[in-house]
Amino acid sequence: MTYCVAMNLAEGLVFVSDSRTNAGIDHIATFRKLYTFGTPGERVIVLQTAGNLATSQSIISLLRQRLFGSEPHLLNVPTLFEVARLVGQTVREVAQYDAESAKSGIDMSCSFLLGGQINGEPPALFNIYPQGNFIQATQDTPYFQIGESKYGKPILDRALKYDLNLEQALRGALVSFDSTIRSNLSVGMPLDVLVYRTDSLNIPKGVRIREDDPYFAEVRERWSQGLRQLLESMPTSPEHFLQ
Amino acid sequence: MTYCVAMNLAEGLVFVSDSRTNAGIDHIATFRKLYTFGTPGERVIVLQTAGNLATSQSIISLLRQRLFGSEPHLLNVPTLFEVARLVGQTVREVAQYDAESAKSGIDMSCSFLLGGQINGEPPALFNIYPQGNFIQATQDTPYFQIGESKYGKPILDRALKYDLNLEQALRGALVSFDSTIRSNLSVGMPLDVLVYRTDSLNIPKGVRIREDDPYFAEVRERWSQGLRQLLESMPTSPEHFLQ
Repeated sequence: MTYCVAMNLAEGLVFVSDSRTNAGIDHIATFRKLYTFGTPGERVIVLQTAGNLATSQSIISLLRQRLFGSEPHLLNVPTLFEVARLVGQTVREVAQYDAESAKSGIDMSCSFLLGGQINGEPPALFNIYPQGNFIQATQDTPYFQIGESKYGKPILDRALKYDLNLEQALRGALVSFDSTIRSNLSVGMPLDVLVYRTDSLNIPKGVRIREDDPYFAEVRERWSQGLRQLLESMPTSPEHFLQ
Repeated sequence: MTYCVAMNLAEGLVFVSDSRTNAGIDHIATFRKLYTFGTPGERVIVLQTAGNLATSQSIISLLRQRLFGSEPHLLNVPTLFEVARLVGQTVREVAQYDAESAKSGIDMSCSFLLGGQINGEPPALFNIYPQGNFIQATQDTPYFQIGESKYGKPILDRALKYDLNLEQALRGALVSFDSTIRSNLSVGMPLDVLVYRTDSLNIPKGVRIREDDPYFAEVRERWSQGLRQLLESMPTSPEHFLQ
């Protein structure tokens, strides 16, 4: 499995992905699930994937290969909505190509989060389904998750607001990953992080947070401790609850 | 869907179930998913169910009906392990009975948590699968969940230890339910709570926590507030994470 979160906030975009890929429980490997495309000063495109690795790699390869053709591609369509359509079409194309083998019962589907900005437009964030259609994040719901999303959802549902600054939002995302990694073997370190500031129009360097990262270790430790303290500080249950 | 948690701790057993049943999103009803059986002073048996309501109700009805026969039943078998086997057999019997209709593709399976104590044995807790086999909780893993378990798992993974007292454990369970209810429409109030003290050998009265319960409202409020404060108190991400 996989866990990816992306946020579209007042100040910009935040992306965090894990990097564990597994087929069964004994075939585990590290694969980056965060891809960037762009033209400095003109557009920044970030893609995150969850689902079948063969399928998502095929889609990314096709998207890359076509950057050098004359047909519409990620770097020449005029809006991010058109970029989402292109990705969705490519998702459908690969699903079609694999349709015969998918009848074997293996889940060959995959989904994408697509975020970025094209000069002249505000940043945007899309959740592209395995069927190739997609929805866009809004101020009411400024984040999307794909993959193993349930463990890390409660903290985002509570804490994530459109007007959080990027640093605060990133902290929320990291805590959400910590919860997921602790409870689910199929999501694992390292984490790939990318934070994009609105109107910077350059692909951020991003950072890979490894198992031994001292900042993440401190967040994990303090979060765990804080949660236990918070639970202890909850009011005592009424006597009749225990009878 | 459903969410049920049961814990087997040093001091006794804790059970919490939600009560929402839904078929699709517009057929929502309240059904109790917590059942008790017992003989005062001799045995206490608690069952919680998740999954297909028709199936789980059939199983409970058969278990009840047989209490008046001479065959082995919940109130005459000598150990809780044998009780778990009886429930597992009944799960298989109903699955067999419904096998033809289940071919239609509707999921007719259900699972059970079974906890309790029979005089002469320590309390025990079992997780009975839709296949009728089961596992038993231990001091290392003193709790089980069935149904929509993922949202509420991180807090239990962190906070629940075998030697927590029953009141603390109940608080942890309630927080786990709060997280689940906030993030998932298919889990809903009221909650049914039952706390059993080791060797009391009487069926506890238990309590139904309704939407307007002032204690649960306070826990929800303080937990939300505490989580947000905890997140704010996390150390600031290093500068290079944001570039």
